[in-house]
This record gives sequence, C-alpha cells and structure tokens, in this order.
Amino acid sequence: MIKTEIHEYRHGDTVCEGYWAYDEAQKGKRPGILVAHEWNGLQDYVKARCKMLAEMGYVAFAADIFGKGIRAKSFPECEQISAPYYKDRQLTRGRAQAALEILQNRPGVDKAKIAAIGYCFGGIVVLELARSGAPVAGVVSFHGQLSTPNVNDAKNIKGKVLVLHGAIDPVVPPAEVAAFEKEMGDAKVDWQLHSYGGAVHTFTNWNLPTTGMPAAYNEKADKRSWQSMQNFFAELFGG
Amino acid sequence: MIKTEIHEYRHGDTVCEGYWAYDEAQKGKRPGILVAHEWNGLQDYVKARCKMLAEMGYVAFAADIFGKGIRAKSFPECEQISAPYYKDRQLTRGRAQAALEILQNRPGVDKAKIAAIGYCFGGIVVLELARSGAPVAGVVSFHGQLSTPNVNDAKNIKGKVLVLHGAIDPVVPPAEVAAFEKEMGDAKVDWQLHSYGGAVHTFTNWNLPTTGMPAAYNEKADKRSWQSMQNFFAELFGG
Repeated sequence: MIKTEIHEYRHGDTVCEGYWAYDEAQKGKRPGILVAHEWNGLQDYVKARCKMLAEMGYVAFAADIFGKGIRAKSFPECEQISAPYYKDRQLTRGRAQAALEILQNRPGVDKAKIAAIGYCFGGIVVLELARSGAPVAGVVSFHGQLSTPNVNDAKNIKGKVLVLHGAIDPVVPPAEVAAFEKEMGDAKVDWQLHSYGGAVHTFTNWNLPTTGMPAAYNEKADKRSWQSMQNFFAELFGG
Repeated sequence: MIKTEIHEYRHGDTVCEGYWAYDEAQKGKRPGILVAHEWNGLQDYVKARCKMLAEMGYVAFAADIFGKGIRAKSFPECEQISAPYYKDRQLTRGRAQAALEILQNRPGVDKAKIAAIGYCFGGIVVLELARSGAPVAGVVSFHGQLSTPNVNDAKNIKGKVLVLHGAIDPVVPPAEVAAFEKEMGDAKVDWQLHSYGGAVHTFTNWNLPTTGMPAAYNEKADKRSWQSMQNFFAELFGG
C-alpha cells in the first residue's frame, strides 16, 4: 500500500513543501530517491513519479526547490519562478541539499543508498547536487540541461551519473552535450549518456502533446529511459 | 543444456563456417540472434557471446563473413582480411544476408523474431544488413563503426537500432557519431545510442587489457551494454 505525505521543511528562511511516497508494507531500511521537479515547481507529474518509485520499493521524496506555494501555471510563470535557480547555482545546491537532508534523516531510509533524479530543470538540480560533493550514490537527469558555471566542481562528484537525453532536444543542443562529456571525462566521473532518436525536450512528461517542438511526450523514449534508470538503480543498490 | 555446432554454408562460391549455440531443452520456436564478429574473423570471443545468448533462451548463429579458415592472429592480418569488407559494403551485405537466411530457415527459430548484433567490424555488418532492408526486428552495434557510403539506404531500415558506444573511442570519433545520428534522424529510424564514459574501442572484449588506447576492456561498460541489449531484446520479443 503506497502512502503519500506532504512534508514542510525549511532552507534558511524559506519554507518548502516536499512530498513523500513510500510503501508502508516495506520493512527495514530502503534506498531513498530524491526527486527534483521541472521548472514549473513541484506538481502532480513528479508526485506521480514518486508513487512509481514507491511501487518499486524505494522511499521517494520530491524536493521543493522553489518554496511552498511557488508553482507555475503558464510558460511565463515557469520562466519567472525558475530563473533565479538557473542563475544562482549555489542557491539551487543549497535547496537541494536541504531536501537531501530530510531524506537522509528519515527512519527507514538507508543513508548509504541514496540517489537523486531530476526532470528538465530538475536535471540541473541533481547534477549541481552531485557537483557540490553531496553523498549520493548516483544521479539521473531526464532531459535536463547539462551546462554549468562550475565545470571544475565535477571533481567533487562522488557517485555515478546517468543522463537520459532526447537526441533532437533543442534545449540541450549537441555543443552542450559535448561540453558535458568533456567535463565528466576530465574529472574521471563514472558517467553514461543514453540518447533517444526522435526525442525532443520533456520527452517523459505524459501531460504534453506527442508531437511538436521544442517539447513533446515520446512514449518509447519515456519507457526506455525509465528502464535505464531501473538498471542504474539495480547497479547502485543491488537487484 | 547448451549445445554448439559448426555449420558450413555458402555465399556464392565462398564456403563459410558459421557457429550455432542453443539450448536443446527449449521447446517451440525461439527468437534468433545473428552475431557478427570483429575484424579478426569468427573466433572464440563471439562463440562465447553466442553461448551467453543461448543461455538466455535465444538461438544464436555466428555469421562467418570472411569465409572458412580466414581468421587473423595478428593486427596486420586483421587489417588484411577485413579491408575488402570495409570497402565493399555490398559484399558485406551479401555475406550477412547469406548467414541471416541460414538462421531464418532453422526449424525452432521464429522468423518474425530475428535480431542481429555485431562487435566492432561486426557493428558495420549489422548496420549494413539493416540498411539493405533485411527483415530484422532490431540490430545492436557494440563499439562498431557507424559511417557508411550508403547514407540514403537508412530509409530501408525496417527494425530498431541500438548503438552501444565508448564515449572516447578513437576509432568512432564524435563527427562519425554526429553523422550517424543525422543519417538515422533524417530517415526517421527508431534508434538509440548509449554512450559510456571512459570507454574506448572494443570495450566489451575481455581478452584485451583493461587500460590503453585505442582499445581496452571496460567491465562496467561491458555489463551495462549487455544489459541494454537485453532490455532491447525484451522490447523486441517480449519479456
């Protein structure tokens, strides 16, 4: 039986409202998965992903990067509420770290078995969290931007990195992919990138239409990337 | 119980010596996997891969592209025996097709469920087979070259394509990857490319040392790519 809970916590003076999903029938300590939302804030889509993770036996916690009540309903609102976090990566890292601590300190979560996944903007969040040197076993970016002002911080990365990428994502162009591969390679990070032909931005989000640029749902790429994430978790945490 | 057999067949006037591996306990028709060897010819490495596929319940057949007894023991011999097939892709397609027909016509193989996998030079073989319009449900290239003189033939591809690539493979440089992605994209092929950080050429072949350029064994990339192949087969053939 999957249970979900709203969880209020703080980062400095900012009140955040995260979201738990877990299987209450699970006994003992379980791996914990931090989930980082898209640029519209913590909404139903990432909550549904948390429930899917809980059904797989993980304790999932959706971070609230923007703070309680900061949720966008339109494209301009998305731009407005996310802009400070694209720009100030230290702020983003701090918000992610605050959520990570909530997850780490939950009884029933195995602190040594924590991964973070993020969608679009959330891909930035989990990669910056890794670059900050946070103790995560692995991070997964779904159609996330890959560039960073902190290229030298890749040496801090402790865990493994999996990037799940739409091959014709105009938001994450080839030059950005190439720079990321160089960044990861130079720092000798354990990384992989799976690129899906025909997939554009936000290819995992079933709320989008199935055609169009720059963002569209792609069912094949969604299923394949979810499978790749499961394989990655199996490698990190055991079968 | 896995059984193996040498199988002599012809392509035109050329005698070829292929290799079967299958589980004799399997009942009914099973998916068939064509296996294309590296530039040294059909040797123990691809035979071992055939046995691994048989253990997974597939009927595996290693094609003999170069012909009976044409097996290289040294780097110059590899170059010598493979050169005609790098150059004359129609010849390579013909050899691959001859082997495919052997696999298709075996009782116990489900003709509608055939895939082809290839290693290094064998990656070229399976991609050219696909470009020829052969009825394969999917092809998998492990650290194979991706360029072709026949870019317009991608429109003939009937199945899905999975490329498993070493991110720093000097034999398959970024420009070749980019051209391949364009080729596949222009022809609207269902394709994926999984790139493994730190992996060079021939990363799956356990006979190589684990460090060095241009080719070295990389256990992580080997296991991850084998897993990706299994996921691909599950998608093609069912669980």
